[in-house]
Amino acid sequence: MGLAAQMLPGVGAFAQSGERKVGYCVIGLGRIADHFMRGVKEGSTSTITGLVSGHRDKAERIAAQYGVPKSSIYSYEDMDKMRENKAIDAVYVALPNSMHAEYTIRSAKAGKHVLCEKPMCTSVSDAEAMIAACKAANVKLMIAYRLHYEPTTLRAIKLIQDGAVGQVQSIVSANGFNESAGEWRLNKALSGGGPLMDVGIYCLNAMRYLTREEPVKFAGFVSTIDKDGRFDTVEENTSWTMQFPSGIQASCTTTYGGSMPGFYRVYGSKGWLQVDEFGYQGLRLTARYSQGRGSPATTLDEPNLEKDPKQFVREADHFTECILKDRAPRTAGEEGLLDMQYMREIYRVAGVTAL
Amino acid sequence: MGLAAQMLPGVGAFAQSGERKVGYCVIGLGRIADHFMRGVKEGSTSTITGLVSGHRDKAERIAAQYGVPKSSIYSYEDMDKMRENKAIDAVYVALPNSMHAEYTIRSAKAGKHVLCEKPMCTSVSDAEAMIAACKAANVKLMIAYRLHYEPTTLRAIKLIQDGAVGQVQSIVSANGFNESAGEWRLNKALSGGGPLMDVGIYCLNAMRYLTREEPVKFAGFVSTIDKDGRFDTVEENTSWTMQFPSGIQASCTTTYGGSMPGFYRVYGSKGWLQVDEFGYQGLRLTARYSQGRGSPATTLDEPNLEKDPKQFVREADHFTECILKDRAPRTAGEEGLLDMQYMREIYRVAGVTAL
Repeated sequence: MGLAAQMLPGVGAFAQSGERKVGYCVIGLGRIADHFMRGVKEGSTSTITGLVSGHRDKAERIAAQYGVPKSSIYSYEDMDKMRENKAIDAVYVALPNSMHAEYTIRSAKAGKHVLCEKPMCTSVSDAEAMIAACKAANVKLMIAYRLHYEPTTLRAIKLIQDGAVGQVQSIVSANGFNESAGEWRLNKALSGGGPLMDVGIYCLNAMRYLTREEPVKFAGFVSTIDKDGRFDTVEENTSWTMQFPSGIQASCTTTYGGSMPGFYRVYGSKGWLQVDEFGYQGLRLTARYSQGRGSPATTLDEPNLEKDPKQFVREADHFTECILKDRAPRTAGEEGLLDMQYMREIYRVAGVTAL
Repeated sequence: MGLAAQMLPGVGAFAQSGERKVGYCVIGLGRIADHFMRGVKEGSTSTITGLVSGHRDKAERIAAQYGVPKSSIYSYEDMDKMRENKAIDAVYVALPNSMHAEYTIRSAKAGKHVLCEKPMCTSVSDAEAMIAACKAANVKLMIAYRLHYEPTTLRAIKLIQDGAVGQVQSIVSANGFNESAGEWRLNKALSGGGPLMDVGIYCLNAMRYLTREEPVKFAGFVSTIDKDGRFDTVEENTSWTMQFPSGIQASCTTTYGGSMPGFYRVYGSKGWLQVDEFGYQGLRLTARYSQGRGSPATTLDEPNLEKDPKQFVREADHFTECILKDRAPRTAGEEGLLDMQYMREIYRVAGVTAL
């Protein structure tokens, strides 16, 4: 950590070594919060210093695990009191989508930096309000696009930028899974929408970081096949085509009704490049390209052997560094807002009420 | 060969064994004609008995290779004389797309059955005229969708029908290649359109044989990225989304500007199934599915080791059997017409003048 960071006026927890760590209060203690907290523990820059939960017992158990004092456990009702808690620099919002806006804004008003899970929220106007609230409170807002900090993804982006596959023409991508009845994702009041919001957003966001362009044309459909009660409020499938200003095209699909391991394949004039898996581990990059007809082909097969929660270590490290060095996160609120706008557009062309 | 077939009044060549073979006249001696002729030679049901070409020298060389008498070599101008040639039962139309209609209709009028390459032609009205002409002449018309007769494809279809991957939700598919300047495919007057017509049609047709449904919704775009003179008359890329009556969705892409090995991946409620390669050999089926959470997963990896021109053997065998047994081909003109209608629709939604 540099001198500038050490001289920052912010308060926070200190590691036993004496080096300052950024303290995170985790809001919502579901599955992804568990990955994040394990990531923070595995890393060396950050620490868990607070919890917000509707289940006091569960929160106390987790607090004991991470060394969080009982006095730093809040309910959803009294979490605004964290303003007074100097050990909390930032919050990690790991709630159902429709609660992201409220808890981001309340956290900002409590003077805490905000790392918010994706999708950023459930409407474009909420996204704008979140950005405005964080700006007004002079706190940082980062959306938890963990793959932006993940080495296989960065390797794919660099290979494309370096021209390995030549001029990119189009990309196909899929990401989905078979969701179980009763999960909050199937309740539109909590999720804001179907698989596009939760897992299709990986395809959408990948198309943007792979092309480094913003999509300008959208076409697609939503459908529900299974009439088993799971899809009373959200759609089961969304497939869409996007076009970028250069002419690059993207074909994407997402589902809550099938087995759909995440992947993208990028087709360029000199070859193709594929990354399998958008999950917490097990990413694998394969590629085959040649610098011209008759030139020998390069074949890549690069499994990423890192284990969960390493991606969360990197994500926390980045936001912590931004806080300590007063830098803008690479995936700030504006990145999340763009995806919200594009998802609204995909839903609009598919005939679904706009976000 | 059954008794009924032997009793058919049609004339034709006979194998040295005395068993009747169906005689084919090949119209257009380009690359795919070479595959077909080698397929016929490798098989046992059919034989090459005529050639139509604008290059007499080339035709004489090939005629010698396949035992075709010089008297059975025709030019495009005098090919109608084949009416008198009893050794010719059928023609194989292997010309550029825009010539399919004229030569199919002239062959029908000459009393010959027609096996026509795909795309069937370059407009819906031409397709209708081809079907009408063959019906009026009482000859059979088959469109050369060779994958309908190919074992890996049939295996994929059967696995899906048998419910191996459960309820299909969506399919992604791509097929394309980097076309060289000067090729006839880049001349719209000959090709009728860009990669959709030539290679994208594999994705389109696969979506139909995999779902056994007909698409009802279309969305998509065309684009041209490379301004190198290749794409003055046809588009470089087409990506589109289709939806079927059940709600199954398809995301497809095709290009003439990149390396895009053909593939499709079918996503179902119980797992996924993928076939790589739409080409003449090297198809491979992979799949992973499970009959329920906690059930052991079935993993398939089935490379098809058959070599080119085996697919053409099967294709010729099928049409020959249809001719000998007076049956309708599985991929009759109506199958080609449907793809023409869908390609017109894809172009229409993409803003390209209708076929």
